[in-house]
Amino acid sequence: MARWKPGTPDRLQEAALELFATRGFEQTTAQEIAQAVGLTERTFFRHFSDKREVLFHRQDEFTDTFRAGIALAPPDAPPIAVIASALRSSADFFPDDARPWSRRRHEVISHCPALREREQHKLVVLAGVLADELRARGVDATRAALAARTGVAVFQTTFELWLAEGEERALDVIAVEVLAQLREVLG
Amino acid sequence: MARWKPGTPDRLQEAALELFATRGFEQTTAQEIAQAVGLTERTFFRHFSDKREVLFHRQDEFTDTFRAGIALAPPDAPPIAVIASALRSSADFFPDDARPWSRRRHEVISHCPALREREQHKLVVLAGVLADELRARGVDATRAALAARTGVAVFQTTFELWLAEGEERALDVIAVEVLAQLREVLG
Repeated sequence: MARWKPGTPDRLQEAALELFATRGFEQTTAQEIAQAVGLTERTFFRHFSDKREVLFHRQDEFTDTFRAGIALAPPDAPPIAVIASALRSSADFFPDDARPWSRRRHEVISHCPALREREQHKLVVLAGVLADELRARGVDATRAALAARTGVAVFQTTFELWLAEGEERALDVIAVEVLAQLREVLG
Repeated sequence: MARWKPGTPDRLQEAALELFATRGFEQTTAQEIAQAVGLTERTFFRHFSDKREVLFHRQDEFTDTFRAGIALAPPDAPPIAVIASALRSSADFFPDDARPWSRRRHEVISHCPALREREQHKLVVLAGVLADELRARGVDATRAALAARTGVAVFQTTFELWLAEGEERALDVIAVEVLAQLREVLG
């Protein structure tokens, strides 16, 4: 089997984002993305099933940062404390120096229905993972699903604030604030 | 312009669900759906942009039942009361005699990634509508987005319980219970 350099998926992702941003998602082919970093279409398809997936290749790591936060919560922590720990931990995936790149990615995704749906799917997967973790801690299925989905709602709202022009606070700081607002809204 | 019978979209939806359930979504064409109810592919495309849309043709009515519930809430009601009113009202879209059909639709959707993504998109649209309504009532953007998304989380969890085999309670009864569980989970 042929070898490829480490970092190839990242380079493809970088090139894809640039092409999607300048030319548009529909107008860009997998072949063009590959060529932009001196690779063949065939190599592209070794890494990704289609051109949409290229913007989501770190999804497992994204989910794992939430899992890591859950592992930090004491075994008897109530569901909301478990979710809060997951949300704080998710900030590891979004360091401040990645904010400009995340803004650009978000901009591209928000203008393309196919990418928006894929991004949404990522959050559905995340909700499933959070619910599984809560059930593994003895939370019943309904409360686990509810807490997991609410956690994703908090994450989405937090993430949008983090991306906003002029925002400089770290993601975990914003997450704590949004969680407090949620309690207030439901109070 | 040619006329078509009232109810054509419903008949196409019924036929599509049957074909998707028995043959699979990928293996079914728009033409076959149309033919199953004695219509042409061209008529199909007068109603729907693609075969996926056929299972979502009442999406506006779905969203409108939430809006109707919001209109019933007093102008000074807190966000959670507005959302609770929307959730109770959404039960109008899901009468008990529609439960077998909804179960079948859900079953088909859950086995097809393209349909699952579309269903998810419907809920994103719903969250947007709920947030808009809350903002129109003077709720700030962050709290509106948060309450709206949490409302959708409650709806999803409620809806899954309503669909469960053996469940006989009405959707609004379940919604009230799930909302109470949410308060408990976040308490």
